[in-house]
Amino acid sequence: MSDILNRLAELLEQRKSADPSVSYVAKLYAKGMDSILKKVGEEAAETIIAAKNSHDHDYKEQLVYETADLWFHTLIMLAKAELTPDDVLNELARREGLSGIEEKASRK
Amino acid sequence: MSDILNRLAELLEQRKSADPSVSYVAKLYAKGMDSILKKVGEEAAETIIAAKNSHDHDYKEQLVYETADLWFHTLIMLAKAELTPDDVLNELARREGLSGIEEKASRK
Amino acid sequence: MSDILNRLAELLEQRKSADPSVSYVAKLYAKGMDSILKKVGEEAAETIIAAKNSHDHDYKEQLVYETADLWFHTLIMLAKAELTPDDVLNELARREGLSGIEEKASRK
Amino acid sequence: MSDILNRLAELLEQRKSADPSVSYVAKLYAKGMDSILKKVGEEAAETIIAAKNSHDHDYKEQLVYETADLWFHTLIMLAKAELTPDDVLNELARREGLSGIEEKASRK
Repeated sequence: MSDILNRLAELLEQRKSADPSVSYVAKLYAKGMDSILKKVGEEAAETIIAAKNSHDHDYKEQLVYETADLWFHTLIMLAKAELTPDDVLNELARREGLSGIEEKASRK
Repeated sequence: MSDILNRLAELLEQRKSADPSVSYVAKLYAKGMDSILKKVGEEAAETIIAAKNSHDHDYKEQLVYETADLWFHTLIMLAKAELTPDDVLNELARREGLSGIEEKASRK
Repeated sequence: MSDILNRLAELLEQRKSADPSVSYVAKLYAKGMDSILKKVGEEAAETIIAAKNSHDHDYKEQLVYETADLWFHTLIMLAKAELTPDDVLNELARREGLSGIEEKASRK
Repeated sequence: MSDILNRLAELLEQRKSADPSVSYVAKLYAKGMDSILKKVGEEAAETIIAAKNSHDHDYKEQLVYETADLWFHTLIMLAKAELTPDDVLNELARREGLSGIEEKASRK
């Protein structure tokens, strides 16, 4: 499961040469960064709304679905900026390291 | 690099029993889902702003940093809702599969 | 110009009994609060993006247009919640009063 | 009540020459447009969250309060961009006119 982000990044890279009339992602690239960022904002709002629907019977499905949408559109944004999920995962790993150090310090 | 999301998820799980006065994450859990979601909204805005700063010399660092912040706070949200990054990655993998099928169809 | 918000609030009130197939606003009411809030999130993102496009020749028009969209959708949200623009303007006036007091205090 | 937006706009204009160490608004101006826009994004998220808390006893107060925060920070954004609330109200009035025309047309 863990390399799905890299597989998606490859797919998103390939879509840079796809036909915008066929591919949703190629269409977003063609519209430009502003259109990609509008989707990031929209999906963030939908994620927040889904997270507030905890009384709905399909709450968890909604939240997973909207979070997947949000992550997916941030992947498109990264690809457009010539960045990869590994750039973000490296940054998160760096912080996890720092956090480990802090945690040890706070245990003393 | 690829299992950093799972390692972070474990760390976030452990923080559920940490002292809110010591751990940033434990403090956010204690404040509740609304406070976590405010951070998701804030970090989404910061990601959008960073993506628009393409003329800054440290543009890519900014964008990676803010995207990491956004993903990190969605991981806290997932943990609070008793969900895991794998739930989201599975949903993305499911879509990648669908996309593969669509792509094949469109090649004919 | 100043009572346009109240005129819009009246219009939005009337649209509560309009046909969703004819009126954009009636359609949004029928879809429910979540759909209205998705639009608020979307328009907030578009406002932020427009504000970052200060090098575009039509920057100010873009920013006025997107801010109008954002305010308009918050008015629909207020109407759905049985609130009025005056409720918000009263809260802003109350703060302006407080601010006047603070300012006097800081002048001493 | 109706001219509170203009009174606030005047106040925000005066704050352009205020001391950032004393005035919240002067501090935001000094930090720059990105900091103002982060607040717009944050307040939009808080408005959405408040609107979802319809089961809270102080739901309406929350929603009025957060909407006031959101409008207030868009006013700071407009002031920073040398725009006024009247620019936005004019755009809304223009649309109200169009809407009137549409409505008449759809009544036939």
